[in-house]
Amino acid sequence: MKKFQPYPGTRDFYPNEMFLRNWFFEKQREVCRNYGYEEYSAPILEYTDLYRSKSSEEIVNEQLYTFIDRGNREVSIRPEMTPTLARMIANRDQSYVPPLRWFSIANFMRYERPGKGRLREFYQLNVDLIGSNTVYSDVEILSVAMDILKSYGANEDQFIVRFSHRALLDLWLGLTDKEKLRKIGRIIDKKEKITQEEFDKELKSICEDKEIKAIYNFFQLRLESYQDLLKDIEPKSRDQISDILNQLSQMVKYLSVNHNPKNLIFDPTIVRGFDYYTGLIFEIYDTHPENRRAIFGGGRYDNLIGQFSKESLPAIGFGMGDVTLEAFLKNHRLIPEISTKQGFYFTLFDENLYSEYLKITHLLRKNHLPVEISLSRPKKLGKEFELAEKKGYQFCLILGEDELKKQVIKVKDLTTGKETELPLEETKFIDGVYSLMQGYNKRS
Amino acid sequence: MKKFQPYPGTRDFYPNEMFLRNWFFEKQREVCRNYGYEEYSAPILEYTDLYRSKSSEEIVNEQLYTFIDRGNREVSIRPEMTPTLARMIANRDQSYVPPLRWFSIANFMRYERPGKGRLREFYQLNVDLIGSNTVYSDVEILSVAMDILKSYGANEDQFIVRFSHRALLDLWLGLTDKEKLRKIGRIIDKKEKITQEEFDKELKSICEDKEIKAIYNFFQLRLESYQDLLKDIEPKSRDQISDILNQLSQMVKYLSVNHNPKNLIFDPTIVRGFDYYTGLIFEIYDTHPENRRAIFGGGRYDNLIGQFSKESLPAIGFGMGDVTLEAFLKNHRLIPEISTKQGFYFTLFDENLYSEYLKITHLLRKNHLPVEISLSRPKKLGKEFELAEKKGYQFCLILGEDELKKQVIKVKDLTTGKETELPLEETKFIDGVYSLMQGYNKRS
Repeated sequence: MKKFQPYPGTRDFYPNEMFLRNWFFEKQREVCRNYGYEEYSAPILEYTDLYRSKSSEEIVNEQLYTFIDRGNREVSIRPEMTPTLARMIANRDQSYVPPLRWFSIANFMRYERPGKGRLREFYQLNVDLIGSNTVYSDVEILSVAMDILKSYGANEDQFIVRFSHRALLDLWLGLTDKEKLRKIGRIIDKKEKITQEEFDKELKSICEDKEIKAIYNFFQLRLESYQDLLKDIEPKSRDQISDILNQLSQMVKYLSVNHNPKNLIFDPTIVRGFDYYTGLIFEIYDTHPENRRAIFGGGRYDNLIGQFSKESLPAIGFGMGDVTLEAFLKNHRLIPEISTKQGFYFTLFDENLYSEYLKITHLLRKNHLPVEISLSRPKKLGKEFELAEKKGYQFCLILGEDELKKQVIKVKDLTTGKETELPLEETKFIDGVYSLMQGYNKRS
Repeated sequence: MKKFQPYPGTRDFYPNEMFLRNWFFEKQREVCRNYGYEEYSAPILEYTDLYRSKSSEEIVNEQLYTFIDRGNREVSIRPEMTPTLARMIANRDQSYVPPLRWFSIANFMRYERPGKGRLREFYQLNVDLIGSNTVYSDVEILSVAMDILKSYGANEDQFIVRFSHRALLDLWLGLTDKEKLRKIGRIIDKKEKITQEEFDKELKSICEDKEIKAIYNFFQLRLESYQDLLKDIEPKSRDQISDILNQLSQMVKYLSVNHNPKNLIFDPTIVRGFDYYTGLIFEIYDTHPENRRAIFGGGRYDNLIGQFSKESLPAIGFGMGDVTLEAFLKNHRLIPEISTKQGFYFTLFDENLYSEYLKITHLLRKNHLPVEISLSRPKKLGKEFELAEKKGYQFCLILGEDELKKQVIKVKDLTTGKETELPLEETKFIDGVYSLMQGYNKRS
């Protein structure tokens, strides 16, 4: 006998955990479909080359589950969806006409040190709008993201959206050295996690004083007041920066129609890790004092799909991971009560009547009423009722010779203890069952 | 630019394929829940040792996707669910009291030569009843299996259940050499795929003439008439065989309450590949002349869980793969029409009114009415209507300055071309929308 544990950093989903996972996913599906998004899915395994060209170096070199298959192909378990999505868009048939609104819910693996909010296998919703670079698509993607959180019962005090635009820092610093710019981006990305001294020290190691001053100026940028800050910027870049900030203001205006504008915070320190972003970037933060961290994020990536096909298509999207989402919902007590069982529990009161029981369960199921039938005769009915209640059932069905002679069935309401006799005749039985359930639903 | 293909033997699920996959899975979930089964899930990766002890040699040596992770652990992508299920049952907490009715829908990988009905990544429903070895649990598992096929619209002429019992051949031949018995089992398993001569030749290579005669006698076994055939069998085995056949007859009697007995065929040539089966084994066959093959199968495995924990638990279950299921449904024209889009298409008729459009879409979505809003102004309304119809929408919404002044919105029914004006006031608008949709649903 050997006890096996799950692989470190992965989870077994027992029925209680699976109930929650299904609840997370169903809400996501509902909101996405309400916006006209269509679900897609893809293999768990891809050629490693797909990630070599598109994913971050950190993912490819340190986190990929990569191996050689029995046919000598270099393959990897997917660490993210975007490269697969780009591949599928490039290979799609003509019936899929952009703009395409697509979403998927899938598992991913990354070799990380498992810890709070970080696992090796996680699930992620990916929502993408492909083929439009209008402000309307930016507005839509952010609306979907916020509406999903609201669909779980979150209110607008519990999260905020921080956003920026990927091109702003480039234009602001006017650097031609893209590698240096990327390094600066990485330092800014860490700003919240390190001290002021550490931050300055890291900047000084690669920047001139003039550049550091410009970076600090950059942090002062606000959508409402930026003209004064622009005076040191080259005229050409100045116009581009103004255009971007105006577009972001317009986005905020439209988002404010259905969302609280207080939740929408322009934040020039937002830098997303992936290199493929080109426009709007955003992160959604928990406002809970013990969890001031990004729940999820996304952005615009207008050049990625063009690298996979002749056709260049702008795109914007986000990924929402289940681990940080669950932490957010737990912080705000938004997790629903778990109920994995519904309907009726049928006691095996008299084994000679088993065929009758089968007929009745068939009738209930035909009417979409779940029923679990016991597999052994109960020694004591009282214990059986306790078991059924523990399993989460509301009603117990009992049929003995006496009831069969009278052509009735006994229904015991396990919450009140009340017993009702219902006629066995099909229509009357089903009507009776529905009216008992309505009474129960009203009460609970 | 490089075009990437999916890894051989795996599938991209574009929205149309995903619509079908979701349809397959939703029916399976519905039937399982109607029987009181709870959903679970598990990691895609397991320690390879888990399969070494439990899966067939063919799977472990030839089909596993196995590799060493970055932490020097030997791991595999799961090729089947049962070992994981046994592991989870052994590790479960006390709140899960047997009998347990569990199901899962998950993807698996096996390194097979991709071909008709065989892929390297496939999805499979696993349904298991753990902790009962009564005939009632055998009846229930087979009922779930048949009800799932019926839930897709299949009738009882389109499939048959062939069943047997794993212990019958052992008792019949009275062999102490388990390895020889296993070999005989494998030859019988191939019987339908090879010629009579090949079959005899393979048997002769390992069996004595007496044994071959016994095997041919064994094939004559029927539930209704077996006494004569038993005369050559040892008395002790004879009683056990009679018991088993009586139990199978009882199972057929109970199954016949809600299913056609013609569909239930005792077939002593049924041998399931996995070594862990101990009792009832069954395979469900397509009756379509061009596809006389097993769609799926399962059986009882009473000793497996005891190998993972101190506690021994009987169990029975089946796995239903999506590839063979889809072939079955296609053969019988049971695949539904694909419709990935529902609800309304909102034209961006006047960009100045975009904020109004956002208010209206919000109202619809709040009432669970899906709406997709266009991302650019249509050059010609006619083209826009064509696009919306091509996407599968039934209704188009149009709002211009004129309508806004009158506080109405235009709804165009794309199937009839009929236009209706609805008041913008919330309650009246939603009521109007519902009544338009009801009219549509009646018509279609």
